[in-house]
Amino acid sequence: MSGGGGASAGAIETDALVIGAGPVGLFQVFQLGLQDLRCHVVDVLSQPGGQCAELYPAKPIYDIPALPVCSGTELVERLLQQVAPFDPVLHLGQEVESLAPRADGRFDIGTSAGTQFIARAVFIAAGVGAFSPRRLKLPGLDTLAASCVSHQAPDVSACQGQTVLVHGGDDRALDWACRLAEHGVAVSLLYRRDVYPAAPEQVRRLELLASQGRVTRRVGQPTQARADAAGQLTGVDHLDPSGQTHHEPATRLFVSLGLSPRLGPLSSWGLQMERKLLDVEPSRFETSLPGVYAVGDINSYPGKLKLIVCGFHEATLAAWAAAHRLRPDAPHHLEYTTSSARLQRLLGVLPRGAE
Amino acid sequence: MSGGGGASAGAIETDALVIGAGPVGLFQVFQLGLQDLRCHVVDVLSQPGGQCAELYPAKPIYDIPALPVCSGTELVERLLQQVAPFDPVLHLGQEVESLAPRADGRFDIGTSAGTQFIARAVFIAAGVGAFSPRRLKLPGLDTLAASCVSHQAPDVSACQGQTVLVHGGDDRALDWACRLAEHGVAVSLLYRRDVYPAAPEQVRRLELLASQGRVTRRVGQPTQARADAAGQLTGVDHLDPSGQTHHEPATRLFVSLGLSPRLGPLSSWGLQMERKLLDVEPSRFETSLPGVYAVGDINSYPGKLKLIVCGFHEATLAAWAAAHRLRPDAPHHLEYTTSSARLQRLLGVLPRGAE
Repeated sequence: MSGGGGASAGAIETDALVIGAGPVGLFQVFQLGLQDLRCHVVDVLSQPGGQCAELYPAKPIYDIPALPVCSGTELVERLLQQVAPFDPVLHLGQEVESLAPRADGRFDIGTSAGTQFIARAVFIAAGVGAFSPRRLKLPGLDTLAASCVSHQAPDVSACQGQTVLVHGGDDRALDWACRLAEHGVAVSLLYRRDVYPAAPEQVRRLELLASQGRVTRRVGQPTQARADAAGQLTGVDHLDPSGQTHHEPATRLFVSLGLSPRLGPLSSWGLQMERKLLDVEPSRFETSLPGVYAVGDINSYPGKLKLIVCGFHEATLAAWAAAHRLRPDAPHHLEYTTSSARLQRLLGVLPRGAE
Repeated sequence: MSGGGGASAGAIETDALVIGAGPVGLFQVFQLGLQDLRCHVVDVLSQPGGQCAELYPAKPIYDIPALPVCSGTELVERLLQQVAPFDPVLHLGQEVESLAPRADGRFDIGTSAGTQFIARAVFIAAGVGAFSPRRLKLPGLDTLAASCVSHQAPDVSACQGQTVLVHGGDDRALDWACRLAEHGVAVSLLYRRDVYPAAPEQVRRLELLASQGRVTRRVGQPTQARADAAGQLTGVDHLDPSGQTHHEPATRLFVSLGLSPRLGPLSSWGLQMERKLLDVEPSRFETSLPGVYAVGDINSYPGKLKLIVCGFHEATLAAWAAAHRLRPDAPHHLEYTTSSARLQRLLGVLPRGAE
């Protein structure tokens, strides 16, 4: 971590702040580490991995170079292993709310959890924005007691004795329903189709439980939440594909309709944007604010493709550009990692202090 | 393979010709496969992998995204596995000599082995050029019988009964010396230093054999090859670090001084170059000749870093640009591999004919 005076009380001083702990943000940390720049990382989700971990943890990805197939979870685990030697500090479950240049050339950054940073360079790897669960809109939902409906993962022990309805068809929805069933909770799964946009393993897990009568599957669209006089959920009406309305009794409703990205506060930081994307210059991936870089799905430049493989390149060039900006007088020769004594010391391949 | 009339007799017609089977050339094949473009690949080396396989097969690489550590050999094996579903045709041990645009918008390409191609697009992934072994220059060498000295890997059985001197200190040199010793051949290793620029495993293998007296290590620079009247090698004089000359008896000399890249014929194809690099436009990685792309270490653009991770990105954008050029009227939406039914059919994950 960099030292230096002029810190606000309690602010964390760092070489680099990376916003977003998805695959590109993690590889950004790795490339900054190679440049000997220490990182703190902020992500709105409660775990690293971004979209990969949250939206398709189990689905196979085929186009990561030299990984013929890997799941989102595996990709993230591999990247976490790769950054481990550089010991980045992750600040999860909080959103970066403010970013402002300081008179000393650094940046003040503040998060929704009140964490304050002073960083010499900022890397926005925020994907398509901060993810929040897409909310179910349903008549009757607003009048329910708050404890009856959730867009977050269920607490299995709190669901014991309840009749649970899970609404959704993705990996998360299937995982929730299966997990509850495996713990003996009475559970139904309601989705608009009888085919699930989920990983085959999750579907097989669900089918096994359904064949054992431990999960009830319903096909239809919810139309109305029903409650008793005390505002406690009693069930959900839904319309099946033939146009018939049914009632599914339930005392708890868990909703997984995917995560909805929203750009959030970063649109107010004064960075040049077009169609909700940050304009960058493709030799450095720097935004209109010098010292602030944007990599991955959040940026835009001629030829841009929203692919992880492109984000890896962007993070690499951005790290080099930042190192050059922060140490203009240092020599910047390209050292291959296979020959990097510093990296190999960090990895424990060479003893500390070795040539 | 694409059809179409107007072929020269015997020429292979293809969507794409990739020049160079290094990591970036192989990933180029993968990205072209995703775009449903069939490839032929030409490489001057006798195996795929380029520099990785030839110069540092055993050395660990640390900066391939999501591969915290892998050897050059492993990287190449992983990429070969990744391109396998697209079934590229490799033409190894030959150099592309000529490239010329045709009146029909395609390209005529000819190799040193006389193979002729007609390709709709060409991808130059030639690294720093075609590799050839760096030649030893030594007084007395020219007068030797050709069978006494080689810059290629030794044939162990042909060396039985010979006294072999291996000159060099890299992975190849150590591997050759160890392999010969392990097969009972009398062998010495001559290198200018007593520290070897080779993978630790190779060095340990050498040290074990040396400690058993099965390899003799010499430190010094060769100064003179000695021969008998028939031109048969009798030994090599060398100068040790203290300035003393020694004579090492030998009947066979194998030299591994690394591979020397040379640009070769591509400098005569009329492509715009600067300092032996092909100028490209970084949204498509197209050279000055439309339809001819350059990716990896051979190209140059603002911000360029000669890193494999950057070549992967370049190959991706080049494949997209070529697909767009070759099928200007087709829709070009970004399909993630995790959702690509075509790829999953090729991989055998989905049955052929499935949605």
